[in-house]
Amino acid sequence: MAVYKAPLRDMKFVLNEVFRADQLWASMPDTRETTPDLADAILEEAAKTTEGLLFPLNRQGDEQGCHWHDGEVTTPDGFKDAYKTFAENGWTSLTGNPEYGGQGMPKSLSVLFEEMLHGSNTSFALYPILTNGACLCLDAHASEELKQQYLPRLYSGEWSGTMCLTEPHCGTDLGILRSKAIPNDDGSYNVSGTKIFITGGEHDLTDNIVHLVLAKLPDAPSGTKGISLFVVPKYLPDADGNAGERNGVQCGSIEHKMGIQGSSTCVLNFDDAKGWLVGEPHQGLPAMFTMMNYERLSIGLQGLGLGEASYQSAVDYARERLQGRSAHGTQNPDSNADPLIVHGDIRRMLLTMRAWNEGGRALASYVGMQLDMAKFSDDPETQEKAEERVALLTPVAKAFFTDRGLDTCVIGQQVFGGHGYIREWGMEQFVRDARIAQIYEGTNGIQALDLIGRKMARNGGQFVQDYIADIRQWLSEQADNAVVREFAAPLERAVATLEEVTHSLMTQAQEHPNVLNASAVEYTDLFGLVTYAWLWARMMAAAEPKSGDGDFHDAKLTVGRFYFQKMLPRAWSLAEQLQAGDDAIMALGAEAF
Amino acid sequence: MAVYKAPLRDMKFVLNEVFRADQLWASMPDTRETTPDLADAILEEAAKTTEGLLFPLNRQGDEQGCHWHDGEVTTPDGFKDAYKTFAENGWTSLTGNPEYGGQGMPKSLSVLFEEMLHGSNTSFALYPILTNGACLCLDAHASEELKQQYLPRLYSGEWSGTMCLTEPHCGTDLGILRSKAIPNDDGSYNVSGTKIFITGGEHDLTDNIVHLVLAKLPDAPSGTKGISLFVVPKYLPDADGNAGERNGVQCGSIEHKMGIQGSSTCVLNFDDAKGWLVGEPHQGLPAMFTMMNYERLSIGLQGLGLGEASYQSAVDYARERLQGRSAHGTQNPDSNADPLIVHGDIRRMLLTMRAWNEGGRALASYVGMQLDMAKFSDDPETQEKAEERVALLTPVAKAFFTDRGLDTCVIGQQVFGGHGYIREWGMEQFVRDARIAQIYEGTNGIQALDLIGRKMARNGGQFVQDYIADIRQWLSEQADNAVVREFAAPLERAVATLEEVTHSLMTQAQEHPNVLNASAVEYTDLFGLVTYAWLWARMMAAAEPKSGDGDFHDAKLTVGRFYFQKMLPRAWSLAEQLQAGDDAIMALGAEAF
Repeated sequence: MAVYKAPLRDMKFVLNEVFRADQLWASMPDTRETTPDLADAILEEAAKTTEGLLFPLNRQGDEQGCHWHDGEVTTPDGFKDAYKTFAENGWTSLTGNPEYGGQGMPKSLSVLFEEMLHGSNTSFALYPILTNGACLCLDAHASEELKQQYLPRLYSGEWSGTMCLTEPHCGTDLGILRSKAIPNDDGSYNVSGTKIFITGGEHDLTDNIVHLVLAKLPDAPSGTKGISLFVVPKYLPDADGNAGERNGVQCGSIEHKMGIQGSSTCVLNFDDAKGWLVGEPHQGLPAMFTMMNYERLSIGLQGLGLGEASYQSAVDYARERLQGRSAHGTQNPDSNADPLIVHGDIRRMLLTMRAWNEGGRALASYVGMQLDMAKFSDDPETQEKAEERVALLTPVAKAFFTDRGLDTCVIGQQVFGGHGYIREWGMEQFVRDARIAQIYEGTNGIQALDLIGRKMARNGGQFVQDYIADIRQWLSEQADNAVVREFAAPLERAVATLEEVTHSLMTQAQEHPNVLNASAVEYTDLFGLVTYAWLWARMMAAAEPKSGDGDFHDAKLTVGRFYFQKMLPRAWSLAEQLQAGDDAIMALGAEAF
Repeated sequence: MAVYKAPLRDMKFVLNEVFRADQLWASMPDTRETTPDLADAILEEAAKTTEGLLFPLNRQGDEQGCHWHDGEVTTPDGFKDAYKTFAENGWTSLTGNPEYGGQGMPKSLSVLFEEMLHGSNTSFALYPILTNGACLCLDAHASEELKQQYLPRLYSGEWSGTMCLTEPHCGTDLGILRSKAIPNDDGSYNVSGTKIFITGGEHDLTDNIVHLVLAKLPDAPSGTKGISLFVVPKYLPDADGNAGERNGVQCGSIEHKMGIQGSSTCVLNFDDAKGWLVGEPHQGLPAMFTMMNYERLSIGLQGLGLGEASYQSAVDYARERLQGRSAHGTQNPDSNADPLIVHGDIRRMLLTMRAWNEGGRALASYVGMQLDMAKFSDDPETQEKAEERVALLTPVAKAFFTDRGLDTCVIGQQVFGGHGYIREWGMEQFVRDARIAQIYEGTNGIQALDLIGRKMARNGGQFVQDYIADIRQWLSEQADNAVVREFAAPLERAVATLEEVTHSLMTQAQEHPNVLNASAVEYTDLFGLVTYAWLWARMMAAAEPKSGDGDFHDAKLTVGRFYFQKMLPRAWSLAEQLQAGDDAIMALGAEAF
């Protein structure tokens, strides 16, 4: 059966031993209160909540799903009570702005909590995670009045939030959206249009639902430069700020999906619904990106969390299931078969899962710390550098975490053999739940285009070059570490490969307008592999002084070696593929497919 | 929405232009009647049946699923009538032995039909495909009396067949199975035990269900050498050979699965059920392997068929869905967006799917022809060589087709963006239906162990060396073909890489008993990539003389180039990974996972 325990030991290793997050937090006024003890206490409470409250609802939530009746949506049994407890215990306000009732915790801590949320119950996780994103967007762009009106109730968990972008004819291409907003005399707007695929668009968990909606003003320029952002609550706040009169937004239906059955995915019909502009007219898309960038990392963590859950379950099964004999001779003489875990192929599968998960956790923490520096540092240069690094790595995290998340869940299911295909065992749910993360919040193809276009080519490769310089700098600083010496050559090869391919693609792009689009996904995979090589080297460097314990730190070195020997080489093939250009991709006429 | 058309043009290309199957059929007495015209007619009728009768039941079959009530199983609406029509039209007897009512068609033809079956409706396909396998096993191993009793009604489709191997505590490791068979005085046996995961173990499509059951005789040696095979019908044949008295086998429940919802997956309880020995006592496993080897290729075709269906659907969507503008400038000025198919990344996805599908179709046909030579040739040397080739390539086909089948279905789903995750669109069903093919009929890990152990190491790499020699022989014969010259170097590199890795693994295995197990899956992937390189070269060589038509044959060359430039390089990485040995895999203690 599927199991889930928050991987606290590994989380603390990454935070405290690899990245010394405590030192960063202590160095900035707004995060100074996050002492190592407080951080540990939060992680331990988070573990209790996710293991004890959310994971037990995961399997049943999948079987029951959400149900729509006459505009109302019922979530699976237990979700409503759990949400109440969850909110009362403060989990909906963890990173919120303290001026409006948030707890102001650093992102480098909350990424670990979000991983736990997704690992224990992705369907449930999506409600608070969308709410967090909506808060971030309002906090950054809304008027003081709107913030006062919405943020405290969103942080408290009484209300929840959504993001309403997609329409039936447009997903990726928001420039062609049709929803309209007509100004009223009182400063509000009447918003009309149909939005689809709205996660948490309607449900029974909270007293009110606050929609952030993209729509066009009557005088809007065409394309993405004519999109504005509105806050449109399900119930209009009354004079006391409570949920009052019903607004003109209705849930027309919910989708029947492959997975995340406990998460309602709604068609929302806005019919002269009252809304208020967030930020400036026609500046809705950049404002929404505040939310989307946040969500992209969070959705990345969906892949990682589910990968971790799948790994733990697969290890459990591989230790218990007796099948076949070790190639090394009988290991379990008391029975007529050895446990699966003696077999090289099973170990290869488990190590692959683990190397993806732990590499991903390190990257999530790294990006989390960069987000903290961007938000909390008082040094403009540090801030700017951190913002650039976040911009560069967010699409990598979203796409690579979720692609590897699916891979990992598929492998975990495979370890279970036939039982992996049977619903009761829970392993196939991880696969179905993980699959959406490659699609929503901008498909992974879109993430890859963001990386190769906006983040790489548009600034002449400067972000990439800065990143490579940092890796080389780290390598030279670590020249005395025995384990780093062991992997300095392949890590330098990885970095040089990324550098060469980056230059090659920019050169190719001068003559081949399609080459960046055609190369984006492979480039992102290469980028992810090289990044994990660096992070594995950092983890090994941190583990090395404590190795020889026959335990945690030794295992870290072994998994790191596995990564370098058995997973990183994929990078060399990707480089060759990318160097081959786009001729074979663009040659075929559309009719010849 | 998902679509399916049998890819007749491509099937005929492989059969007639690449492999000249007509020449092979004409050269052997038992296949001489399969003229090109007859083969075309069969394929065209097969297309009509799969497109018109089976595909329309596919989506609804997934939604309805099978239902169990008090030991009886109801299949989805329409399955029963469709099965009747299907059988009446002769599709259940296509490759059957003519002595008992079969049509004796060559396997190289029927692999294409099986691909259509799986592509149009995998759940439905499993009932006749299991039946075919049971027939093959009975035909090869049963007594004349049993053959007379069972084969005609199985070929006619009045009865269906199953294979009963797995028990709750043993799947892969059949040596530890517990089902028992006690001899009766009349030459029959009383079979008792519980079998799980029995595809088509109970259903409402046929008048009788004929189970082939592995069980142990009272005096059986332990392990796999003590397993015998029995035929155990649901209804005992009466004096006229019709389904008579109910036998002691009951369906205890059906599984709730990730996919193939229209296929019943049953727990079968045998309680002193009357059965008859098939073949010799304790020789059940080799006899069952007759069926399993057949099924393995057929289940490989499940991956291929679903990959084809997913490809066609994705192409359809990519041509129709308007989203974004081409990097090359506006392609569709009549609308505010271009079709998806203009984008390099979408094309990369479609070409990847197509290259896997067409490479797989070529391998299926190649293996089909080898099976025909093994079965129908009157030259013992030809037969033996063909048998060896089939032995070598069957695990590759099963594992590589189904792994690439899942990859392909996942890509196809990705092309649909958010709609790919919604059930009504049908793309996520392909993914769920494809997933089981990597697990059942021996997991792909087991296929890989079969390849690297029995088929490679056990004979000192001789089968692999013979295969490599044939590829090199072909290359030297084709030295004048312009397109072969273009790819002679990478194909030779691919072959040399496989050769080197094969030698390296045999050397490593002398000191490292786990290395074959730990390397099996990567070796199979390498084997598959190299094999497809050869087959793509063969397809390109066949297409080249007809190229310049701006149509089918030109497209073949383009997709072939894509394969060599963008897919084959993965082989070099796999080789590096395999050369790295198993140290990092075996080092970790079981408790450290």
